[in-house]
Amino acid sequence: MSAPSDLDTLIELMAKLPGLGPRSARRAVLHLVKKRALVLMPLADAMTRVAETARECLNCGNIGTTDLCEICESAKRANGELCVVEDVADLWAMERAGVFKGRYHVLGGTLSALDAVGPDELRIPKLLDRVASEEITEVILALNATVDGQTTAHYIADQLENRVTVTSLAQGVPIGGELDYLDDGTISAALRARKSV
Amino acid sequence: MSAPSDLDTLIELMAKLPGLGPRSARRAVLHLVKKRALVLMPLADAMTRVAETARECLNCGNIGTTDLCEICESAKRANGELCVVEDVADLWAMERAGVFKGRYHVLGGTLSALDAVGPDELRIPKLLDRVASEEITEVILALNATVDGQTTAHYIADQLENRVTVTSLAQGVPIGGELDYLDDGTISAALRARKSV
Repeated sequence: MSAPSDLDTLIELMAKLPGLGPRSARRAVLHLVKKRALVLMPLADAMTRVAETARECLNCGNIGTTDLCEICESAKRANGELCVVEDVADLWAMERAGVFKGRYHVLGGTLSALDAVGPDELRIPKLLDRVASEEITEVILALNATVDGQTTAHYIADQLENRVTVTSLAQGVPIGGELDYLDDGTISAALRARKSV
Repeated sequence: MSAPSDLDTLIELMAKLPGLGPRSARRAVLHLVKKRALVLMPLADAMTRVAETARECLNCGNIGTTDLCEICESAKRANGELCVVEDVADLWAMERAGVFKGRYHVLGGTLSALDAVGPDELRIPKLLDRVASEEITEVILALNATVDGQTTAHYIADQLENRVTVTSLAQGVPIGGELDYLDDGTISAALRARKSV
């Protein structure tokens, strides 16, 4: 390789990012070098800042720059509703939808017998604590509609039985979805959960 | 958005990289935050170093950390052969193939009437200088097989006529290529350039 070693290191590290391989990492690095002032320098700064400040919220597991994240500290969020998500990415997706006004609890994964992930590897004990100590009236399970996600949802629902209302996201046809392109499972779930018009 | 502003800035900047959009930028940033010591910190360091040191080689236009790039400075490279490429990415591709032992000249683009790119916007005058001042015996045009690439190749070949041997990469069926999947242009180029076995 003719590229000097600093560039090689950068390409190698970029190639480790999800969604980038060696080829797209090289393309990204060339782009960075060409747009040094506009992209590379601000990006290097932003990375350094995030590396220094980002941390997990001690309460809910969201990523923030303080011990308690913005959502946990905000007085504007409803106290009673707690939305349980697998991952910070799912929390961000919920926030983008902009309809949920309560607080969150990030599990950090799902139960998985294959990967030996039990309740104590996730933030499930902390969830039970929060339900006991905060004035939670409803726990909304917004877990992915995968086998592991649904197993985890059932486990949590069992743990919280008779203590609080537990709900989960509705399953059905996505907005804009065409029946012809939907899988059988989604169609039968939508049919079972049909509503009167 | 719930993500704090440092994270937002980082996501926005990452989304500007070629090959990444807003969604994959968010995924990459979450990955970075999770692997802070392993990926984020080394990546921030590598970016800072590259931002400080990377520069264009004054001679050939390759990217390096010194005024003259490794290839231009190397005593091991053959002096007579000069390979002309559009872009640093193309130079890297040639180097990965590992068969060319001469030196390079990076044009920095192609002639384009539509985008108003003339010879002086590219490193063509510098190429003519190098052919005159260095002991070049052969100029190999390794330009992309696009309309603009081939126009540029013809222009350069015209300029260098009677001064030096000018060759270009062979066109034909790629190694491992199946005729059924090749476009008509490639097949007819390969047929015209057929060789006795």
